[in-house]
Amino acid sequence: MSSAQPTGSAPAADDLAGVLADRLARLAAEAELAGADVVLVGPGADLHYFLGHSVGSHERLTCLVLPAGDGGAQLLVPALERPGWAGSPVEQLGLPVITWADGQDPYRALADLLPPAARVLAVDDHLPAVHALGAGGAVPGSELTLAGAAIAELRMRKTAVEIDALAAAGAAIDRVQRSIGRWLRAGRTEHEVAADIATAIVAEGHTRPDFVIVGSGPNGASPHHEASDRVIRPGDMVVIDIGGPMPSGYFSDCTRTYQVAGDGTAEPDPLAAEVYEIVRRAQQAGVAAVAPGVPAQEIDAAARRIITDAGYGEHFITRTGHGIGLEVHEHPYIVTGNELPLEPGMAFSVEPGIYLPGRFGVRIEDVVVVGADGPLLMNRAPTELVVLD
Amino acid sequence: MSSAQPTGSAPAADDLAGVLADRLARLAAEAELAGADVVLVGPGADLHYFLGHSVGSHERLTCLVLPAGDGGAQLLVPALERPGWAGSPVEQLGLPVITWADGQDPYRALADLLPPAARVLAVDDHLPAVHALGAGGAVPGSELTLAGAAIAELRMRKTAVEIDALAAAGAAIDRVQRSIGRWLRAGRTEHEVAADIATAIVAEGHTRPDFVIVGSGPNGASPHHEASDRVIRPGDMVVIDIGGPMPSGYFSDCTRTYQVAGDGTAEPDPLAAEVYEIVRRAQQAGVAAVAPGVPAQEIDAAARRIITDAGYGEHFITRTGHGIGLEVHEHPYIVTGNELPLEPGMAFSVEPGIYLPGRFGVRIEDVVVVGADGPLLMNRAPTELVVLD
Repeated sequence: MSSAQPTGSAPAADDLAGVLADRLARLAAEAELAGADVVLVGPGADLHYFLGHSVGSHERLTCLVLPAGDGGAQLLVPALERPGWAGSPVEQLGLPVITWADGQDPYRALADLLPPAARVLAVDDHLPAVHALGAGGAVPGSELTLAGAAIAELRMRKTAVEIDALAAAGAAIDRVQRSIGRWLRAGRTEHEVAADIATAIVAEGHTRPDFVIVGSGPNGASPHHEASDRVIRPGDMVVIDIGGPMPSGYFSDCTRTYQVAGDGTAEPDPLAAEVYEIVRRAQQAGVAAVAPGVPAQEIDAAARRIITDAGYGEHFITRTGHGIGLEVHEHPYIVTGNELPLEPGMAFSVEPGIYLPGRFGVRIEDVVVVGADGPLLMNRAPTELVVLD
Repeated sequence: MSSAQPTGSAPAADDLAGVLADRLARLAAEAELAGADVVLVGPGADLHYFLGHSVGSHERLTCLVLPAGDGGAQLLVPALERPGWAGSPVEQLGLPVITWADGQDPYRALADLLPPAARVLAVDDHLPAVHALGAGGAVPGSELTLAGAAIAELRMRKTAVEIDALAAAGAAIDRVQRSIGRWLRAGRTEHEVAADIATAIVAEGHTRPDFVIVGSGPNGASPHHEASDRVIRPGDMVVIDIGGPMPSGYFSDCTRTYQVAGDGTAEPDPLAAEVYEIVRRAQQAGVAAVAPGVPAQEIDAAARRIITDAGYGEHFITRTGHGIGLEVHEHPYIVTGNELPLEPGMAFSVEPGIYLPGRFGVRIEDVVVVGADGPLLMNRAPTELVVLD
């Protein structure tokens, strides 16, 4: 097991335009293979991936229009939001930017940009229904399909620059996890602890906190609990699952579970230390199974086997992980049934847990990239149980 | 012109369940009129409106299933997120909550909840394409339509409780606008000012800042500029457009434009005071035109006329306003071509502006509710030009 070595700064503008042009060409080719005539991509992580920039808000249509096969992309934006694209990589790309004004029909404007024979419109998975059906309605005889699978083929395979960005995000959130003892202690509410962590996430270099889960005592037994007014007690196990986007657009995501020291009147659950060690071994087994050619579901199985063999299988109620990059959840998913063979550059979380209703939960999560010889760890905060006084 | 009088606290739980049941029944009836067999609503403002609660994250399907006509709603949620609905109003409503687990096909689970003859599926406007097309694909012979118009029929007409919530949001953001002089001054960057304002937005009762536009000098000439590292200079005009959601879920949104005092070496643009007064008169004319029965586009025309007559028509490059409630932009839109007659309870912004490229921008924005006799102002911060030393 080695660790990713950031190799330096982001590519120069020239390189970036080349990278983006290559991505667009590959998507146009993937779309043709999938039988689509054109791909439509709205604001969000997909647009950021293909154009190096994404603005676009609320209800006004912003849409990348990419004909299948030979490409020839254009970008449709609201006139009002045109200034937000000035100086963006679309200029180096030489991409035509077409505007529509308030009061005009944006779907008519979109239809005018399509190849005349285009009938199969592949829309990005996140595009709101109002825009997807609006586009379909403006093209008589059209059929809507999803571009998500074709886009995932590209986005799943991270380049060295993207892996560097994930490593930087991991290092930033590791600094927060290593400092948890400054904020997490008995007598404070989960909300109070979460507010301090949110501030630290930004102070350590993130653009914003995206999620701050503080699951103390019984609250930790619900994997998606966020934070509450519950006062943390001596002896509590506390799940801290935190992350957010960096200025690069790439996300961090790291979970550690801590124990608050007992005080003689309130002591840790007698199962806590044992359950913690089972989860820790399961997480290590999941990470150790990561290698090129291994099916994604095998990572899940490797972690799950440890927990099942220890008698807690029914309390591991989630999949083992999710891809991560420009979104905090993306392909590939580390879940039973996903037979996708892992390839170098794929990035995902490994986060098994045991959730005991009414008592406590334990989860340990690192982000891992598939390297040529095995896993590259994006998180380095220690996984031994930390007891906080 | 009168102002909204908050009438007190939110309704008790019993009342809330009644309100929600009524909304669901009315949507089921609207959907039947529109020819739909079933309405599908995903997480977001629409779900909040109908269920008094909305959780659901990322890529896993959460969906309200409402058969047209007689109703009989059910809620499909990921098993993992089921605890997030405990204690929510769906319990008072007696709504069946159905779960699906990681590894299962959520669209198959959704199809199993539909009436057997359902073919026309009306999806909420925000539903991501992956879920809309996923639902359509699971029902052979189905047709997707948009539920947005039917939902807007309900959401556009605010009740007294909703108007109270908007008034409370307006009062909160007014307190921030009245304090702008504490943060906005020459020598600071837009980002620095925006960070202080964001903190104040939360301190005054919002859940979070949703947008903090600080558009100084030439940056104010781009209506959707956010904030930058530009250092604010003596004599600058500065557009401050800010808001966010309150714990009620309802949004604030208020714009004021300030002038930073000159210092002898740098002085205000000679046009600044004149342009400011034109925008102020236009904004007052827009507000004064608000009354039941008036078409929405007439509010736009009333404001636009003042600016056009003053010779700045080409520099008023946006619509005049947008509806506001559980979303910061919703129906009705105050734009040329919208002939919708205003009705009591409709809520929207009135925000004309003049944008002079390379020089400065001025925008003034209040949220207004249509009252029986005219406009009810949700914002009370003064609109006279404030010069900050």
